[in-house]
Amino acid sequence: MATFRVIITLKPGILDAQGQAIRRGLLALGFEGIQEVRTGRYLEIDVPEGWGEEKIRAMCEGLLAHPLVEEYRLEGC
Amino acid sequence: MATFRVIITLKPGILDAQGQAIRRGLLALGFEGIQEVRTGRYLEIDVPEGWGEEKIRAMCEGLLAHPLVEEYRLEGC
Repeated sequence: MATFRVIITLKPGILDAQGQAIRRGLLALGFEGIQEVRTGRYLEIDVPEGWGEEKIRAMCEGLLAHPLVEEYRLEGC
Repeated sequence: MATFRVIITLKPGILDAQGQAIRRGLLALGFEGIQEVRTGRYLEIDVPEGWGEEKIRAMCEGLLAHPLVEEYRLEGC
């Protein structure tokens, strides 16, 4: 068994309303000076031994990430 | 400016319904053999230079992660 980590974030230029809300929350809590918060989704996927990066990318593009507004990166490949 | 990455996941033993749903979706798409999918949230936070790990942890525990059911880890500290 192998574990892949997938991090899905919004493409540059797409409004990250959740990140802006978190930033405002942190500022209101007194954490002044925070310049930006960017949010994303994180997945850990346990796949059978021997699956290559290509198959993981097919999963990401088929179901996990929205190709129009999101980008993803793989770790542990 | 420094950038911290925060990965927030459910504690072991907490039901990850979203991960189970994603796993079923991938199986239905023909990606057979996937054993588990675990989901989480991902944040990138740009903070002023000189903020230590302790201050980032205070943010995580104050607003970002739910201490009862979630755990977090920092990268880039």
